[in-house]
Amino acid sequence: MTSADRWLLPDGIEEVLPPQARRIEQLRRRLLDQLDNSGYDLVIPPALEYLDSLLTGVGKDLDLRTFKVTDQLSGRLMGLSADTTPQVARIDAHSLAPEGISRLSYCRTVFHAKASSLLASRTPTQIGAELYGEAGVGADVEIISLMLTLLESAGVQQVHLDLGHVGVFRALAAKAGISAEQQRELFDLLKLKCATDLEAWAAREIQDAALAEAFALLIRLQGDRQKLDAAISRMAELVPETSAELAHIQQVAEQLALRFPQTSLYFDLTELRGYNYHTGLVFAAYIPGYGDAIAQGGRYDETGAVFGRARPATGFSADLKVLARFGTYQTEAKQTVVAPNDNDPALWQLIAQLREQGKRVVVPLNDDAIRADLYLKKLDGQWQLVEA
Amino acid sequence: MTSADRWLLPDGIEEVLPPQARRIEQLRRRLLDQLDNSGYDLVIPPALEYLDSLLTGVGKDLDLRTFKVTDQLSGRLMGLSADTTPQVARIDAHSLAPEGISRLSYCRTVFHAKASSLLASRTPTQIGAELYGEAGVGADVEIISLMLTLLESAGVQQVHLDLGHVGVFRALAAKAGISAEQQRELFDLLKLKCATDLEAWAAREIQDAALAEAFALLIRLQGDRQKLDAAISRMAELVPETSAELAHIQQVAEQLALRFPQTSLYFDLTELRGYNYHTGLVFAAYIPGYGDAIAQGGRYDETGAVFGRARPATGFSADLKVLARFGTYQTEAKQTVVAPNDNDPALWQLIAQLREQGKRVVVPLNDDAIRADLYLKKLDGQWQLVEA
Repeated sequence: MTSADRWLLPDGIEEVLPPQARRIEQLRRRLLDQLDNSGYDLVIPPALEYLDSLLTGVGKDLDLRTFKVTDQLSGRLMGLSADTTPQVARIDAHSLAPEGISRLSYCRTVFHAKASSLLASRTPTQIGAELYGEAGVGADVEIISLMLTLLESAGVQQVHLDLGHVGVFRALAAKAGISAEQQRELFDLLKLKCATDLEAWAAREIQDAALAEAFALLIRLQGDRQKLDAAISRMAELVPETSAELAHIQQVAEQLALRFPQTSLYFDLTELRGYNYHTGLVFAAYIPGYGDAIAQGGRYDETGAVFGRARPATGFSADLKVLARFGTYQTEAKQTVVAPNDNDPALWQLIAQLREQGKRVVVPLNDDAIRADLYLKKLDGQWQLVEA
Repeated sequence: MTSADRWLLPDGIEEVLPPQARRIEQLRRRLLDQLDNSGYDLVIPPALEYLDSLLTGVGKDLDLRTFKVTDQLSGRLMGLSADTTPQVARIDAHSLAPEGISRLSYCRTVFHAKASSLLASRTPTQIGAELYGEAGVGADVEIISLMLTLLESAGVQQVHLDLGHVGVFRALAAKAGISAEQQRELFDLLKLKCATDLEAWAAREIQDAALAEAFALLIRLQGDRQKLDAAISRMAELVPETSAELAHIQQVAEQLALRFPQTSLYFDLTELRGYNYHTGLVFAAYIPGYGDAIAQGGRYDETGAVFGRARPATGFSADLKVLARFGTYQTEAKQTVVAPNDNDPALWQLIAQLREQGKRVVVPLNDDAIRADLYLKKLDGQWQLVEA
């Protein structure tokens, strides 16, 4: 291996250099402050856990994306956390186990053995919030509002929000009793967004005429929400089991439209992949020029059950590094003060004070080329700040 | 596996809950600000790298502590970073490659397959700083001063600083041409701190009388630095190759004593383990009630060489979670404002404003039990803050 090879990084794994690292740190603080000020308490889940704990109830997709290592102490398999949400659900269900509602937030690196898309990092800095204990429209509105506010704070513009509902598809699938194989075919057809193919599939595979029409209708439940009223009513008519879910998504959309008039709101009931452990309303924010969702989340009311306590849950997450890349937020500039190398305790105290006040003070060593905005100089026996 | 087992965490791996997570976040910001204000630019090295890049030139001990995973994309072995310093050295040598001095800082989780001690976490949050491009006493004094200032900022008290110098032992070993086996024996004897055993070993193993005396003398080069003048002079007399190193450590100690009169300063030239890639002055801070060093570092002038650019280097690091545990720093308290669930846009704007200003504003959902310090209420047609 030559020295040139030694600094090649694996695909999808990056290092962040100044000044970008400083910019990311400032955004991190801004967003964590927003979360804290919205009542969400920070937690730091373990970066590494026994695989059984990590993957219980979260689906196959997360398993494939999880790096595994053997614990030398116990001989058991451990996994690197690929998604913080199930861990926070465990913290809520077991470690905190509060009586009422709990609001939790986090920001840390997660690890993906396979990137979630061609664009994505394999070590995203996942930042997010989770809300437990409330199943109503209010909780979904609160979480989505928080996500949109964070995007706004980061200076992410032209946000387009897709609302979906995993429960609608699940109600149809349960009623029709479709097989895993049929579900895979259906997912593929929905992804291709070809209405004729889907209709042909439904006519062939689904006996019941109303259900067959409902499956075919799914593909029309996407787009501008104001134009979907007829299709939504028809779906509720065909499969009454979906009407509560459809009413829920409409109520959430109405409240969000009041609060975020500048955000484009779309429905998309065909988007089902990537929502591994989700059970209800799901959502994703998109912006022009980036093919993946820039932030996303949804309801996952069952996840806590395997840890002894199922309760309503909804949350969202984003990759802080992606937000930093697409956000136009301004970073705070800092002046550099250059001080002489002098053992005078008065100088040392002053330097400590200035640093405490947020000034950047550097004492040059021999080979140092520092661009100064200000100098510390001794004038009339006193150390003073002087313009460069 | 029962549900009780599912939330057992592996030994040495922890989760952090509120309010401790918030306390750690506040300390993180305080210390990163200190680093930034001292002229150290933040970098975020990759959490995961090809094993060859990660372990080049850093010694066997770090290899044993590194978790390995296979990269599914390339089939190559990758390692989880167990120590940030060698990665920052690579960033300095290759990615930034500046002409003069560079000052870099970092704060992130590292992973240890085996904990570095019985007390230590296997996922410490390593925070630290590195200074490249200057070999003189001034660079060592700057780095150690920065470490002591950070400990002070964290409210870590009764700090005791040990100064050592890997170069003194290396000069002796090189002159005597001792074998790897002899070096292991010597490390064990120095660790036991038994002078008679060491003398017997030196008399038996080392031919040259002056060198034998010098090896035996090593064990006396620990303790209160003011009492070591005679032993230090004798060492320089016996092995003149050590005199530059001994003068260096004394000069650093003198300058630090001026700046930090409250810190106890000791010499310890017997401490050689744990300094895998170090080449010169090494140091460690201890406090009563914690058996490991609470912060440590040293000079490692050669590490950049394998990446095409060897230059003088020194730095330190600490585990942020340990600093939070032993530091008595105060955290900022925050009042909670409870606001009603109302779709009035004026209320929404006010809530956003208050949050932006640093207030914590929560809108209760059905099942919410929130302790309020203040309420947002509509009085005379205006939303106002009212005492609880």
